[in-house]
Amino acid sequence: MKLPGQEEFEVSSACENVPTGELENGPGSCPSPDGTSDTDRGDRGVPTDPLLFIQLNELLGWPQALEWRETGRWVLFEEKLEVGAGRWSVPHVPTLALPSLQKLRSLLAEGLVLLDCPAQSFLELVEQVTRVESLSPELRGQLQALLLQRPQHLIQPTGTRPCQGSAHPREASHNEEAPLKEQRQNPLRRKLPPGAEAGAVLAGELGFLVRPLGAFVRLRDPVVLGPLTEVPLPSRFFCLLLGPSTLGRGYHEMGRAMAVLLSDRQFQWSVRRASSLHDLLAALDAFLEEVTVLPPGRWDPTARIAPPKCLPSQHKRLLSQLREVKGPSAQHGALAEDRHGHWPQAPSPELQRTGRLFGGLVQDVRRKALWYTSDFLDALHPQCFSAVLYIYLATITNAITFGGLLGEATDGAQGVLESFLGTAVAGAAFCLMAGQPLTILSSTGPVLVFERLLFSFSRDYSLDYLPFRLWVGIWVATFCLTLVATEASVLVRYFTRFTEEGFCALISLIFIYDAVGKMLSLTSAYPIQSPGSPAYGCFCQYPDLGGNESQWKKTEPKDRGDISSMDLGLVNASLLPPPECARRGGHPRGPGCHIVPDIAFFSVLLFLTSFLIATALKHVKTSRFFPSVVRKVLGDFSSVLAMLLGCSLDSFLGLATPKLMVPSEFKALECFQPVVHAHVLLPPTTQGLGTGPTLPGRGWLVSPFGANPWWLSVAAALPALLLSILIFMDQQITAVILNRAEYKLRKGAGFHLDLFCVAVLLLLTSVLGLPWYVSATVISLAHMDSLRRESTACVLGEPRSFLGIREQRLTGLVVFILTGASIFLAPVLKFIPMPVLYGIFLYMGVAAISSIQFTKRVQLLLMPAKHQPDLLLLRHVPLSRVHLFTAIQLACLGLLWIIKSTPAAIIFPLMLLGLVGVRKALEWVFSPQELLWLDELMPEKERNIPEKGLEPEYSLSGDTEDVSRRMGPLRRRGQEWGGPS
Amino acid sequence: MKLPGQEEFEVSSACENVPTGELENGPGSCPSPDGTSDTDRGDRGVPTDPLLFIQLNELLGWPQALEWRETGRWVLFEEKLEVGAGRWSVPHVPTLALPSLQKLRSLLAEGLVLLDCPAQSFLELVEQVTRVESLSPELRGQLQALLLQRPQHLIQPTGTRPCQGSAHPREASHNEEAPLKEQRQNPLRRKLPPGAEAGAVLAGELGFLVRPLGAFVRLRDPVVLGPLTEVPLPSRFFCLLLGPSTLGRGYHEMGRAMAVLLSDRQFQWSVRRASSLHDLLAALDAFLEEVTVLPPGRWDPTARIAPPKCLPSQHKRLLSQLREVKGPSAQHGALAEDRHGHWPQAPSPELQRTGRLFGGLVQDVRRKALWYTSDFLDALHPQCFSAVLYIYLATITNAITFGGLLGEATDGAQGVLESFLGTAVAGAAFCLMAGQPLTILSSTGPVLVFERLLFSFSRDYSLDYLPFRLWVGIWVATFCLTLVATEASVLVRYFTRFTEEGFCALISLIFIYDAVGKMLSLTSAYPIQSPGSPAYGCFCQYPDLGGNESQWKKTEPKDRGDISSMDLGLVNASLLPPPECARRGGHPRGPGCHIVPDIAFFSVLLFLTSFLIATALKHVKTSRFFPSVVRKVLGDFSSVLAMLLGCSLDSFLGLATPKLMVPSEFKALECFQPVVHAHVLLPPTTQGLGTGPTLPGRGWLVSPFGANPWWLSVAAALPALLLSILIFMDQQITAVILNRAEYKLRKGAGFHLDLFCVAVLLLLTSVLGLPWYVSATVISLAHMDSLRRESTACVLGEPRSFLGIREQRLTGLVVFILTGASIFLAPVLKFIPMPVLYGIFLYMGVAAISSIQFTKRVQLLLMPAKHQPDLLLLRHVPLSRVHLFTAIQLACLGLLWIIKSTPAAIIFPLMLLGLVGVRKALEWVFSPQELLWLDELMPEKERNIPEKGLEPEYSLSGDTEDVSRRMGPLRRRGQEWGGPS
Repeated sequence: MKLPGQEEFEVSSACENVPTGELENGPGSCPSPDGTSDTDRGDRGVPTDPLLFIQLNELLGWPQALEWRETGRWVLFEEKLEVGAGRWSVPHVPTLALPSLQKLRSLLAEGLVLLDCPAQSFLELVEQVTRVESLSPELRGQLQALLLQRPQHLIQPTGTRPCQGSAHPREASHNEEAPLKEQRQNPLRRKLPPGAEAGAVLAGELGFLVRPLGAFVRLRDPVVLGPLTEVPLPSRFFCLLLGPSTLGRGYHEMGRAMAVLLSDRQFQWSVRRASSLHDLLAALDAFLEEVTVLPPGRWDPTARIAPPKCLPSQHKRLLSQLREVKGPSAQHGALAEDRHGHWPQAPSPELQRTGRLFGGLVQDVRRKALWYTSDFLDALHPQCFSAVLYIYLATITNAITFGGLLGEATDGAQGVLESFLGTAVAGAAFCLMAGQPLTILSSTGPVLVFERLLFSFSRDYSLDYLPFRLWVGIWVATFCLTLVATEASVLVRYFTRFTEEGFCALISLIFIYDAVGKMLSLTSAYPIQSPGSPAYGCFCQYPDLGGNESQWKKTEPKDRGDISSMDLGLVNASLLPPPECARRGGHPRGPGCHIVPDIAFFSVLLFLTSFLIATALKHVKTSRFFPSVVRKVLGDFSSVLAMLLGCSLDSFLGLATPKLMVPSEFKALECFQPVVHAHVLLPPTTQGLGTGPTLPGRGWLVSPFGANPWWLSVAAALPALLLSILIFMDQQITAVILNRAEYKLRKGAGFHLDLFCVAVLLLLTSVLGLPWYVSATVISLAHMDSLRRESTACVLGEPRSFLGIREQRLTGLVVFILTGASIFLAPVLKFIPMPVLYGIFLYMGVAAISSIQFTKRVQLLLMPAKHQPDLLLLRHVPLSRVHLFTAIQLACLGLLWIIKSTPAAIIFPLMLLGLVGVRKALEWVFSPQELLWLDELMPEKERNIPEKGLEPEYSLSGDTEDVSRRMGPLRRRGQEWGGPS
Repeated sequence: MKLPGQEEFEVSSACENVPTGELENGPGSCPSPDGTSDTDRGDRGVPTDPLLFIQLNELLGWPQALEWRETGRWVLFEEKLEVGAGRWSVPHVPTLALPSLQKLRSLLAEGLVLLDCPAQSFLELVEQVTRVESLSPELRGQLQALLLQRPQHLIQPTGTRPCQGSAHPREASHNEEAPLKEQRQNPLRRKLPPGAEAGAVLAGELGFLVRPLGAFVRLRDPVVLGPLTEVPLPSRFFCLLLGPSTLGRGYHEMGRAMAVLLSDRQFQWSVRRASSLHDLLAALDAFLEEVTVLPPGRWDPTARIAPPKCLPSQHKRLLSQLREVKGPSAQHGALAEDRHGHWPQAPSPELQRTGRLFGGLVQDVRRKALWYTSDFLDALHPQCFSAVLYIYLATITNAITFGGLLGEATDGAQGVLESFLGTAVAGAAFCLMAGQPLTILSSTGPVLVFERLLFSFSRDYSLDYLPFRLWVGIWVATFCLTLVATEASVLVRYFTRFTEEGFCALISLIFIYDAVGKMLSLTSAYPIQSPGSPAYGCFCQYPDLGGNESQWKKTEPKDRGDISSMDLGLVNASLLPPPECARRGGHPRGPGCHIVPDIAFFSVLLFLTSFLIATALKHVKTSRFFPSVVRKVLGDFSSVLAMLLGCSLDSFLGLATPKLMVPSEFKALECFQPVVHAHVLLPPTTQGLGTGPTLPGRGWLVSPFGANPWWLSVAAALPALLLSILIFMDQQITAVILNRAEYKLRKGAGFHLDLFCVAVLLLLTSVLGLPWYVSATVISLAHMDSLRRESTACVLGEPRSFLGIREQRLTGLVVFILTGASIFLAPVLKFIPMPVLYGIFLYMGVAAISSIQFTKRVQLLLMPAKHQPDLLLLRHVPLSRVHLFTAIQLACLGLLWIIKSTPAAIIFPLMLLGLVGVRKALEWVFSPQELLWLDELMPEKERNIPEKGLEPEYSLSGDTEDVSRRMGPLRRRGQEWGGPS
């Protein structure tokens, strides 16, 4: 599972400076800070320069067999023709030699520069370009013929799909020279966005020229120049660099330099607006001012640099351009805009207090109502199918295992049946109404612990549990509704990353602990027989002397064969497997009868393989193997495929592993225990393991008082207060985690609405005597992860980027409808072995805990300083401080774990609240700068930091480049953690 | 297992251009082409410039609190001070801005340049530097005081060990200013080689200056400048760049530019020899000519580039330098030298025909005799201990499993006993005498197949097998000695990579197939009990009515407890495990008695975990976690640790898994079969699984005729001919693989000597009736891999590089002595479960097959073109041709596998020879250029390629940079396969 937080950890900090002006036309390019991709932004109609496709045609074969051959092409990065291999190279960052740029400059300075050339065809263009004094008419003719010669292109057929919405490149209406079929069929054409223009650079060594010939042409109207470029795009720029053989490879390198210049957005911007040679040269000089120089001894100039994950900011470059064009005032405006993009923003609208009763709730409902239709339409994608399967299986496993736990803990007041029913009803209702419908409700974790404590309390004082519980529920609902009314949810701004991660780590660890624990409990249910084990042997004894034995021998003489029915020299006994024995009226006798061999280790095998396969398949997505489609399917369906593989392996071997047993009908749910006793006739395989009892004969509604005194309904307010804190914390921290900026959610959060729904559902489930539900962190994260949208890399060399989540209500809804319908799916579900599901649970827990920065900081503890990755955090905070922060987090986590496991668990809700307090206290230990890097700032601090807090460090390091980075954390939650990978 | 071939696949092609003049003083730097590291070469006493440590001290805090602070340092790469974090950055390739270089140039041009300054202390130096006209005496005083101010250094304590041989840095005898304690304790000091010098750059903004002040000083004698540099090295260069505030960050960047210039070996070379300002500026211009330029829009200038795995060639740069200094004649000489380094060399001396009878053998003996002492001394390293353990366990497992196979195949003529004895004797003798003592002898693979065929032939014609076999052995030895006498081993030059890889892949696949097959045979020996299985139940029946039963009840009433001794209502029977039952005189009865549950799946678990743990631990070596020492131990001992973990798990659970059972004494070896019959009293755990029978009562020597007719001794020449071909191929291909250039062996090969030893040992084992032995590819590769020497990265940022193999005879010798002594180690070895060993076998097979290029090319088949790595091969050969070549190799492999598995296996030796023929025939299909990239050239082709073969492509692509690369493959076997990773 690769959650966005994880990516940010690795990615270059340069990503913060998203190229806003850079890739307007590049579909699927780096997403902009507001979470919409550039394609989305295209709708806003900001006019920008079209994307330029640049091609270098080289003149080869002098003097015998002159021919033009395309040897390089550029869109964002360079692709070089591998002559020997007949293929295009991998796109890479172009590297130039400084002399070639200087030579190019002098050639352009002496050469012909035509700006706004009115040529309408390649012929006209060639005529204009060759109208140079230094050429004799004869040479001019030769040159013209040569230029008009058709160049050789390498057209590489690839099976890539077209980019979204770019299937129809603009056809130049004034196209006089029809493009060749080869050009039209070029698959590259479909990868370029509509409106793209071409630039052609022709370079080479031409012996008959006496002096170098340089020409740079900007066409007034872009024209398709016949077969000149490999794609039939209208050309805007044309550059000719020819000369005698003295320079050797020089023309090739100059041509590359020209092409790289043209592919530079800033140079292009200037050249499109240039009115003279002077402007052109100024643009080239401006380019030179900004190049990065690598020393020769430390970098092999022929090494190819892979495209960076994100391109550098073009902000500063734009500024200097504006300063030149419009003077300092324009610069100021642009700076303000820049600040707006980079400076800390006001809290997001859903967390602004309206000051009215239920104001936040009303706002939430209004905001979410706008998206309601799209919440269903956006689900129409095959990925959602996989998500439904995956989350459905997780949900029912959860319902069964935790329902079983709850049943045990409450002596059957809450059991598997209630768990199923409640999950289906509450989950579906929440998905239909909630502010964040990606949330999956569950009764796991702290709430379960609380209910267990509540039950033991009511048992100790001989209370009627369900009525008491009803009153607790009524009070909790009241408190929660009060919190909604008073817009208390805006306090979630105090839940910084410290609190989120502490909570998320705790929940994930509980998940992992439970998965492993359940697995180990299987091995004690199916004990391993060691050689010295006394529990050996089992045979079938018949109660009746004589008669019965001979009877079955007669009726089924061939059925079991010789081995089982052979005469053992004994009376009234045979060797039959216990079920067979029982079927025939005998009694299995012996200590080995209840032992089913091989199940324990096979379960461990299934558990490990399903975990490892799910993990491995998830990694296939980023591997080099298989076509994109296959990788995508394997990655998206990783957990479902891992489950299928586990089930196949299980059914292939046909062993009696414990299977997923859902109650087949509501009434028939019987009372069975997971503990297996010796001498039980049936092996435990026919029992639903981990399922618990359900009280027989209870009605649909819980009576409000039962046998309890009336004042208990008031006294219930006290535990209800604790539970309210717990539910508020649990629900809202989960909501904060799910609504993290790094997930790039477009439809916004609904903290008030979510809490409202939880309160209402809590009331409902209390009345019906069903379990209480709250958002489940781990499953909800898994849900979101299975709905990740990623760009199909289109412009060559561009990295695949995370676009957001498929935000909709349908997957959750279908999951819970299926959960309700599961009682009819029992015949199918009973093929799924429990160990496989536990393996997937382990995978979910590990994925959730790997997705948080805290885990990475814990890993730093194990790394020697010199092997640590180059993280921005480590550049700015002393390592000892980082370790101290991590150690404090670890201590908090340990404390929470201990409290959760002891009778003190009743104060657990307060301890969660305590996390916020600990974070507040950390302000005494750490400086604001350190907290800015390690965590994020609390609301009141956030306002006064930018002005003075950072000043000292700034002046000390003096790194201007660093300022925007240091501001990064303030700008957007959760994006600050990055460093060049 | 990371064999060198694997690395080469990933590494940048720049590595071919090893920086010969670059790192003479850098210990552990990129190894030179002749396989010796630079430290080795240091002994030759070639005088080179000392390594330079450069430090940038910046003046910060203007105007209030001026202080000097070290903000950057350079040895090979740049390290920047992370002010906030108080640590040094990760070493990275320095990047500069072009304007800062230009500004530096003009400042130097106007400033003070002192070459061969005689200053003997920092005070003198400061006086000289500040003797500038533009400064008033008052300002001069201020400036001097400022310069003498002690700079702030960040001394980072690290736990790294000193480089080999560099523990005593040179103390400048004329040191007047004693270094500070802080300086002397700097751990960096131990990382710098002896003789290193320092260069100090002081830069900053100084408001009271009216105009910029630039000074460049080269000291005549390097002097320790007090506390100026963080390490007390004698300084050679000193540069001062100060000026008014107008430039802002400019001084920092100029200071960096100066430091980067000084860290450039070429610039340093020039500046050490410069005699005027003009020379200095010329060196700067030469640097500028060669810089690599990255365009601003495509590369974030603040991104840090990780140090490349190998540095670029300094050859060309050296050439241009020489041209300037000494004129064209020097250039010619250098070019010739360059050609010598890069052009195809004559075949290595061990493969040159002497033309005398046994000439090659004599040469081999002479050559190896020189190393004989060091062959024992070089083994004194803890790594060898791990290698011995690892290979010893592999060898005895091999001896037992393949001995068992041989025993089965030959009806006991060759069994486990013979296998043990033969392995110990032949292996130890080979290690003492052989040309390549890293080879591990074994009777696996093709020879085993051949012996099986030979036995079935002799059985079909009722021949006395061992005497017949003796004659075959005599003939084979004769043929092999003839091959040695005629120096036939020089023909191994026809074994190109194609043949090597085909053979290696086949042997590795057989290894994997056997490991998995053995594992699966375990699961059939310990069947899984499925629910419907009829084989159920077992109890203990006593033969005597009445008496016995009561007897044991009385004697041991408490021993087994209630369960086993309970009254079952039956006569004369009880439920006891079969061994216990047998011990008490009863008979276990029932179909379930021979079934030991849980073993099958537990074995699978052990098999998988030992494989996965060995693989994972091997990867720890290159991970970021743990200190270097821990990582090294975990990596080096990976297989031993995996075995230990498997054994612990097994003994923790105490299950009766099949264990490694070595014959406990020679005579007592009994005849047992691996097939388990039903109703056997003892569970199979007490039997040595996979062991085979040994003929009783045979003598130590095989009689020469036995019952065979006399002419059979002549007829044996025919099978002997086939076997000779097989042994020649098997032995020599393995030897070629082990002696590959990429392993950087220093002591050379001994093809003739190896073959001679094999022939002699073959004769010996034939006489003694022991198995025949030949070099085992997979185990020998594992042996070499466990003896890899790697550099401790010393100069900062330098990558860890492969230095070679610990070539010695001791590890092999100890392994075989231990093998012989294993009969006394039986009590220890019986704790090792067989599945763990099979897991390690799988690991070895997978490692061996992963180490060959063929595997990587097979992987290319699964990758879409655009995701393929940027390999040099793919830049020069069309993809379809690469795939065709791979497909042909796959087809050959398939054919060999089929032949090996069918009765046609007798012609297998000829088919191996056929591989060379196929490779020859490929010259009709592929062009020499393609074969150069895909394989290597055969001897006669190698000579005529460089002159004309490559010309056409060269002129077409015109890439001068590419020529040396294309020549790469010819230069050294096995180094050509590379591309920037």
